[in-house]
Amino acid sequence: MTDQTLNVLAIGGSLRKGSYNAAVLRALPDLAPVDMKITLGPPLAMPLYNADVQDSAGFPPEAQRLADAVRAAQGVIIVSPEYNFSVPGFLKNALDWVSRIPNQPFNGKPIALQSASGGPVGGARVQYHLRQIMVFLDALVFTRPEVFIGMASQKIDEAGNIHDETTKKFIRDQLAGFAGFVRRHG
Amino acid sequence: MTDQTLNVLAIGGSLRKGSYNAAVLRALPDLAPVDMKITLGPPLAMPLYNADVQDSAGFPPEAQRLADAVRAAQGVIIVSPEYNFSVPGFLKNALDWVSRIPNQPFNGKPIALQSASGGPVGGARVQYHLRQIMVFLDALVFTRPEVFIGMASQKIDEAGNIHDETTKKFIRDQLAGFAGFVRRHG
Amino acid sequence: MTDQTLNVLAIGGSLRKGSYNAAVLRALPDLAPVDMKITLGPPLAMPLYNADVQDSAGFPPEAQRLADAVRAAQGVIIVSPEYNFSVPGFLKNALDWVSRIPNQPFNGKPIALQSASGGPVGGARVQYHLRQIMVFLDALVFTRPEVFIGMASQKIDEAGNIHDETTKKFIRDQLAGFAGFVRRHG
Amino acid sequence: MTDQTLNVLAIGGSLRKGSYNAAVLRALPDLAPVDMKITLGPPLAMPLYNADVQDSAGFPPEAQRLADAVRAAQGVIIVSPEYNFSVPGFLKNALDWVSRIPNQPFNGKPIALQSASGGPVGGARVQYHLRQIMVFLDALVFTRPEVFIGMASQKIDEAGNIHDETTKKFIRDQLAGFAGFVRRHG
Repeated sequence: MTDQTLNVLAIGGSLRKGSYNAAVLRALPDLAPVDMKITLGPPLAMPLYNADVQDSAGFPPEAQRLADAVRAAQGVIIVSPEYNFSVPGFLKNALDWVSRIPNQPFNGKPIALQSASGGPVGGARVQYHLRQIMVFLDALVFTRPEVFIGMASQKIDEAGNIHDETTKKFIRDQLAGFAGFVRRHG
Repeated sequence: MTDQTLNVLAIGGSLRKGSYNAAVLRALPDLAPVDMKITLGPPLAMPLYNADVQDSAGFPPEAQRLADAVRAAQGVIIVSPEYNFSVPGFLKNALDWVSRIPNQPFNGKPIALQSASGGPVGGARVQYHLRQIMVFLDALVFTRPEVFIGMASQKIDEAGNIHDETTKKFIRDQLAGFAGFVRRHG
Repeated sequence: MTDQTLNVLAIGGSLRKGSYNAAVLRALPDLAPVDMKITLGPPLAMPLYNADVQDSAGFPPEAQRLADAVRAAQGVIIVSPEYNFSVPGFLKNALDWVSRIPNQPFNGKPIALQSASGGPVGGARVQYHLRQIMVFLDALVFTRPEVFIGMASQKIDEAGNIHDETTKKFIRDQLAGFAGFVRRHG
Repeated sequence: MTDQTLNVLAIGGSLRKGSYNAAVLRALPDLAPVDMKITLGPPLAMPLYNADVQDSAGFPPEAQRLADAVRAAQGVIIVSPEYNFSVPGFLKNALDWVSRIPNQPFNGKPIALQSASGGPVGGARVQYHLRQIMVFLDALVFTRPEVFIGMASQKIDEAGNIHDETTKKFIRDQLAGFAGFVRRHG
């Protein structure tokens, strides 16, 4: 690692322990290219967004911590399960808080998206909703290659390890592409 | 009111008190056609969805209450603010819980959507995301007329009353159309 | 076939001959349940929509024929390839014409969607765009089961026959569900 | 104009003469910042995309001309009407052709979106569909400010001139932001 190493944050996963997406999140540091250091972000669980609470008590420390981590990173990877064909409530809630923090940290930030699911579609639906959210947040979302890990039970074992080499290659290819994207656009 | 009166639930609004969407929600019972009784649903605040919690402790009582209210209604109106060009985390989180309740209650249920926002678009973006979520939930979403209340500060006063007659008419027209939709398809 | 037989139109496919989606379209009549007769609709190729042409010369005969076929059917199945993550221009152009025909024929019409693609996602993206278009057209779009035929080259042979039994079963299951949907809501 | 002047292409509008979107397109050169030269692109009317035609006869000259114009520009502005809550067939058809041209020209290209409509939403729906298409095309789509020109009949006169100063300012602000975006990311 040198001064040139890219500093990238990975957030998302799922609140449950055995989640495929949490497994993907944990695997990322080892799949990163040599010039990228991936750090796993703080948990996304925080109180439900409420503007009255924001006005009276300010931002919860979990939201501040997430905002600080995003701000400190040169790029952010969001690994998201698909709940009901869209963004999980817990992830959207975290974005709802962070989006109100002054000088909101996703502004201009390079973002990559990944998702895993038990079915064949692999989370395509959640990613396009996330892309629309990122328009509001003024982030710079990496396009392709996309990472959709369908039929995840055939690719990730019960201990949460990705044992499918094709899947690892897809992830590595995206991370390599994202490294170039962050260098050009970050 | 007779045996023929339609029994419709309205949910959504916002967790904060002064919300435009909460104002719209409160106005609905008075704007309903004579053959429709609109009841305001239980609050949507509940713990963040977590499959491990579901497995160990079951569903939170707030989710059960919401599911029961949806199940008991012939149709459901969702009044939703738009957060970051999509569904608010707190609303999605409530749907994430309810969607896992056995015999999930949105199945086949007629749904109408409304949204209000301070800007001119009036929440168009959140409604198309909700429509996609409702595909997964197998609900039957009313199409048109759509209710987008843009520039809401010019139409809803500080006490939370809709003072714009055109807005009231838009809402009444949708509710009348939705009444026919529920009778035909519910 | 009796008076109770449902009369369903299938449109879409692709303008090219060897298309996977054209193969699916041709297979539908044989996969229909006993109480449903599926007729293949007229071709979708027609001049580009232009309101000036509409004003001066009226609707092209191809658009009238398509509108008549939709109007005469109790339900419509659209089999669409995905071009560039969305609806093919030729299909959208046909819908753009038909949508302007007075008493537009998709109004209230039950619709089912199917798509096939060479990649794993199987056309999920085109279907959600079509669903949004159908909101404007006031159609009643069937929800689930959805039919996405991914990795189509492994399921459809070069002669354009579906040789994968699982794929045929998916299609049959949707058609059976759609038959009930048309009876209830058509 | 100097060597530093940005060379930007504007395409879209509508095939009909009196279109609001064509009016916006024609207004762009005069609304550009001093360091940006906006050239109006070739017409988008071309034969319907058909892979068999592509194989036997190659690309139509209109598609080649459009691809060349995109390739020669440092950034592209797409001004699109909204037809049936989505992308007009003629525009999608043009993109379907250009997307197959080897070394497809939208790859990595900075893109800005604008739309005008008679209703209040101003084309929000078409722009999010275009954004999804641009993910496939690997373009770099400018986020904000967005340009939605709603209630266009109040802002554009019958001769096709924008007479609303607020609308002109919205457009100018986006063009200024886009100039910076093209310099940073193009």
